[in-house]
Amino acid sequence: MSEHFADRLLAAIEEKGSPVCVGIDPRPDRLPEGFRAAPGTLQEAEAVYSWCRELLEVVAPVVPAVKPQIAYFEALGAPGYAAYFQVVEDARRLGLVVIGDVKRNDIGATAEAYAAAHLAADRAPDAVTVNAYLGADGVRPFLNVCREKAKGVFLLVRTSNPSAGQVQDFTDSGGTKLYEMMGELTAAMGREEGMTGHRGYSAVGAVVGATWPGEAKKLREIMPHALFLVPGYGAQGATAEDCAASFREDGTGAIVNASRSVIYAHGRQEYAGMDWKQAVEAAAKAFAEDIARAVRA
Amino acid sequence: MSEHFADRLLAAIEEKGSPVCVGIDPRPDRLPEGFRAAPGTLQEAEAVYSWCRELLEVVAPVVPAVKPQIAYFEALGAPGYAAYFQVVEDARRLGLVVIGDVKRNDIGATAEAYAAAHLAADRAPDAVTVNAYLGADGVRPFLNVCREKAKGVFLLVRTSNPSAGQVQDFTDSGGTKLYEMMGELTAAMGREEGMTGHRGYSAVGAVVGATWPGEAKKLREIMPHALFLVPGYGAQGATAEDCAASFREDGTGAIVNASRSVIYAHGRQEYAGMDWKQAVEAAAKAFAEDIARAVRA
Repeated sequence: MSEHFADRLLAAIEEKGSPVCVGIDPRPDRLPEGFRAAPGTLQEAEAVYSWCRELLEVVAPVVPAVKPQIAYFEALGAPGYAAYFQVVEDARRLGLVVIGDVKRNDIGATAEAYAAAHLAADRAPDAVTVNAYLGADGVRPFLNVCREKAKGVFLLVRTSNPSAGQVQDFTDSGGTKLYEMMGELTAAMGREEGMTGHRGYSAVGAVVGATWPGEAKKLREIMPHALFLVPGYGAQGATAEDCAASFREDGTGAIVNASRSVIYAHGRQEYAGMDWKQAVEAAAKAFAEDIARAVRA
Repeated sequence: MSEHFADRLLAAIEEKGSPVCVGIDPRPDRLPEGFRAAPGTLQEAEAVYSWCRELLEVVAPVVPAVKPQIAYFEALGAPGYAAYFQVVEDARRLGLVVIGDVKRNDIGATAEAYAAAHLAADRAPDAVTVNAYLGADGVRPFLNVCREKAKGVFLLVRTSNPSAGQVQDFTDSGGTKLYEMMGELTAAMGREEGMTGHRGYSAVGAVVGATWPGEAKKLREIMPHALFLVPGYGAQGATAEDCAASFREDGTGAIVNASRSVIYAHGRQEYAGMDWKQAVEAAAKAFAEDIARAVRA
């Protein structure tokens, strides 16, 4: 745990051979047979946890990182919330780098409580996503944990969803858009004392949607030392080529996430006839190869 | 529960005689003697819950609403997360309007999971705070719950913290600032079909920090039909006069929150000699009177 977060993530990517991350978004209604239970029951949270655990074992040999999305765990109530931290712990034990997709944000004093819960705690992930609409003092408690515990954060800069531009394209008189300004803020925080790892990357990364390759290209220039967490591949419609815009020319600097297209592969026609684990493994490998190929190109 | 959220909140304010809300921010190290337990234990979450329950009984006769801050509950782990929902339920049983300060945000599909967990669930509060950096499609799942279950949302427009302006003052070529644009977005959502209550106020409210009275005045004009949730009074430094800028001339349209200055009143010199409940009651009454006076003025 004493190795810098960015160095740890880069080493894991090299070991597995592809800069990819599988999103753990458990939706009870999409789980394979055998993992169903009555909605709202403790059994439902237990079934979801069992599925997550088997899923982790399938993807751990293939990908360097996973990104549990806490919203789906919270939708299961308190037992789901507990399951999220159990999944984080299990994933780390399997050698995966874990990025908790929590998008927490608040004023300084309250952000401290979130940082303690989601980044500093014993069972917390290696990094979390943070929404910086409140400016630096809502982010700083997370940065303090990055320094003290060799953790990372990914600030929301350009999100992958269709309406991202509604707020993030707000443009100043000089032509700079809000998401670019957020990129500058991210870069500035990443340059602070103690934030840079041996490989030159910072512990302060950025969420940059693969669905916006033009924006990603500009952001790559604004934040040369930030790692990009790139959602939007697969079910959200972005291709491997779209994702490539988030990487440096040397093929480093980003990690691409896919959730639904991998974890629910058993529902996809191309994997018909496989059991769910075979389908997930095949989809994870295809995803990893697709991204590795596009980044090399 | 079939009455529109805004009408319900306005009726509660009139019944209690002051547009105020007490923030429930349980920090274990600031709780009175008798509510302390070893950090990180189940006993700690239980002690926090016991304190919250007694606190609710003290403030329920004085104020119309409470705002539990989920971050402090999450800092206690899964038992804390469970305690948050128990506190929400207890508060509603005591007749309080409950605003869950959760600041959730994500892309549409994931925001649905958050909306289900935090606004639609049986034990969910009457309203929640939402961060709209992702634009309308991250907010829409919450709006759907507002319509279906007569609930409310408060979008972060101008936050109370010192660095709020770092992002929220970003200005376009016409001189409009980001927080004003966010106010316009909030107003537009509030005008949608089925969002307006009998009294003319919308279920889509705005968080507007009392620490920024000039900005609040402008926002009052931009969002004439939105209820403002106004943090920043007390420990954060804003006065009752600063809060008054968030109200319409008829004295309606906002609810002012105070957390630390009320709930930890037993540590304040002016309440020395009282037990903690007497101190909280006195501080809640002084807060309610101070705001009622400033709004009338």
